[in-house]
Amino acid sequence: MSTAPPFEIDAEKERALELLRSSRRFLLVGHRRPDGDCIGSQGALARGLMSLGKEVHILNPDHPGPTFDYFYGDCPFGVYSGAALPEHDVCVLLDINELSRCGPMEEPLRAAPSKKLVIDHHPFAGEPWWDAAFVDVTASATGILVWYVLHELGATIDDVVAKAVFTALVTDTGWFRYSNTDAETMAVAAELIGRGVDPSVVFDSIHQRSPRTEPHALASLLARLEYFADGRLAVVDHPLNNGVAANLADSDPLLDILRAVGDVEVVLYVREIEPGMCKLSARSKTDYNVNALARRFGGGGHVKASGATIEGTLSEVRTRLIESALGDLTSEVSE
Amino acid sequence: MSTAPPFEIDAEKERALELLRSSRRFLLVGHRRPDGDCIGSQGALARGLMSLGKEVHILNPDHPGPTFDYFYGDCPFGVYSGAALPEHDVCVLLDINELSRCGPMEEPLRAAPSKKLVIDHHPFAGEPWWDAAFVDVTASATGILVWYVLHELGATIDDVVAKAVFTALVTDTGWFRYSNTDAETMAVAAELIGRGVDPSVVFDSIHQRSPRTEPHALASLLARLEYFADGRLAVVDHPLNNGVAANLADSDPLLDILRAVGDVEVVLYVREIEPGMCKLSARSKTDYNVNALARRFGGGGHVKASGATIEGTLSEVRTRLIESALGDLTSEVSE
Repeated sequence: MSTAPPFEIDAEKERALELLRSSRRFLLVGHRRPDGDCIGSQGALARGLMSLGKEVHILNPDHPGPTFDYFYGDCPFGVYSGAALPEHDVCVLLDINELSRCGPMEEPLRAAPSKKLVIDHHPFAGEPWWDAAFVDVTASATGILVWYVLHELGATIDDVVAKAVFTALVTDTGWFRYSNTDAETMAVAAELIGRGVDPSVVFDSIHQRSPRTEPHALASLLARLEYFADGRLAVVDHPLNNGVAANLADSDPLLDILRAVGDVEVVLYVREIEPGMCKLSARSKTDYNVNALARRFGGGGHVKASGATIEGTLSEVRTRLIESALGDLTSEVSE
Repeated sequence: MSTAPPFEIDAEKERALELLRSSRRFLLVGHRRPDGDCIGSQGALARGLMSLGKEVHILNPDHPGPTFDYFYGDCPFGVYSGAALPEHDVCVLLDINELSRCGPMEEPLRAAPSKKLVIDHHPFAGEPWWDAAFVDVTASATGILVWYVLHELGATIDDVVAKAVFTALVTDTGWFRYSNTDAETMAVAAELIGRGVDPSVVFDSIHQRSPRTEPHALASLLARLEYFADGRLAVVDHPLNNGVAANLADSDPLLDILRAVGDVEVVLYVREIEPGMCKLSARSKTDYNVNALARRFGGGGHVKASGATIEGTLSEVRTRLIESALGDLTSEVSE
């Protein structure tokens, strides 16, 4: 048995649970390039529902790669190929609240006669369009909501479920570093480790598989670092053909190193992805809102982590971004 | 009130608690270059004992720098200056079990007529020399033992104690990544966060204060990386005068980046610290025992993290280390 939720099950959540209890055939879906919270939530819910005798398929627009293979193969994961969807009574959206996030699966899912259930922790601004929802925007991860759902359903918790939920927690809390790391998250993590999850094995699988080229690629990018605004702004640009050994398999370590500099408040990593087209990854360490910055360039994301795809040469885009960020940093000071 | 220990208080531990209860004046001491487990354990125990009306001083051979200033100033920390020790009835060794680890404080502490109490999680091979001990080698950190001691004493737990114990936990578990991260550690961390510790603030303070020169220094060192044994061995050497922008303030991020490469099992970082003298930092990601390697060169440490100071030019020392490590890796294969 998993842990009871620390909140009351209201009528809306009860409706979601009732839909899960009363239905037989499930299709769990997620977003493009599914991350650990999406994959972990799906794996845990699938195993739990299967323990209750349900028929479950998982389908995502993309394969997550080998990162999660310590539980992926033990769950009924599939990747959408364009073929007909498996027959199902209920489609569960995990870690998303819009079908548009499902890429090429959007239309077939919309056309399917199934009930649509959302289990998620993201805010949603529009009118509820789903049949039922188990949503808590204060939850650190969607995986913790799945953990409570499994408790309410009386589902069997095995070591695969434990590993999957742990994966969701560590992914969305930046391995227990971000400000969403609350007591509840740690208490559930304690229970999962008590059930046999080895954090060092999960860490190794998620964060210790980079290619041999990664340190040299990091070196050549870090060498391009420039500071602005007395070190408050750190900028790394990445030309398409510049002798950088290879593209980074993962840009998070680069962004982490820059964010680790005491003076740095904002980090911009601008990569030319094709001639005349650039990709921005922006991070903030303070109240500086990189989501507002990214939105000015047609992108978006979170207050502390955002991105955008921006037209222009690398040098143009870099200049515009620096000007825009410096404008914010200066106006903050003068306010 | 803190959490009750999950183990029975045996006669030896009861003797330690009795010494804490019955004495009035305490001197808490730690090791050279005290780390977060040492400083956190000292801060928490000091505050707890003070809440019981005791007189407490903390004295270390070195100042830990600004890293822990989110609780350091709220505890009676001092740095040994060579002056007479404060008068005390009990000297508590935290995170160490030998007075020799106290550097210049060793002799005065030995000469003092105080009772000696050890609170620690390190193994000790020799004959017990102390008056009392509260030791558990299975504890992830000394700080968790202090947490239980405070419970048994009925000490007041305030937010300073919570931050100090949290610091001890994250330091010794590599921020909940290492294999010593057990359910008990996470459960205590959950309680500490529930008492107001903000993990993101602690992370920022410990890991996001590097100097502006750090990314460029990292870049120039990563560029020197060479692989051996088909990528299983990663070696970075660091000459005294090589145009490296600056020495690293912290070598952990460098070692982490190298360890993150999927193929890498062993990481050697060899730095020339003065002409004819080198310092080795060795890390293992597998069963490879870097302690055995370091001991062959007069150093030591843990199975997965060790170091040594080695005489010789950088090129000599580097060659000897690589030969030694390759010998191990090859003999493993042939076994």
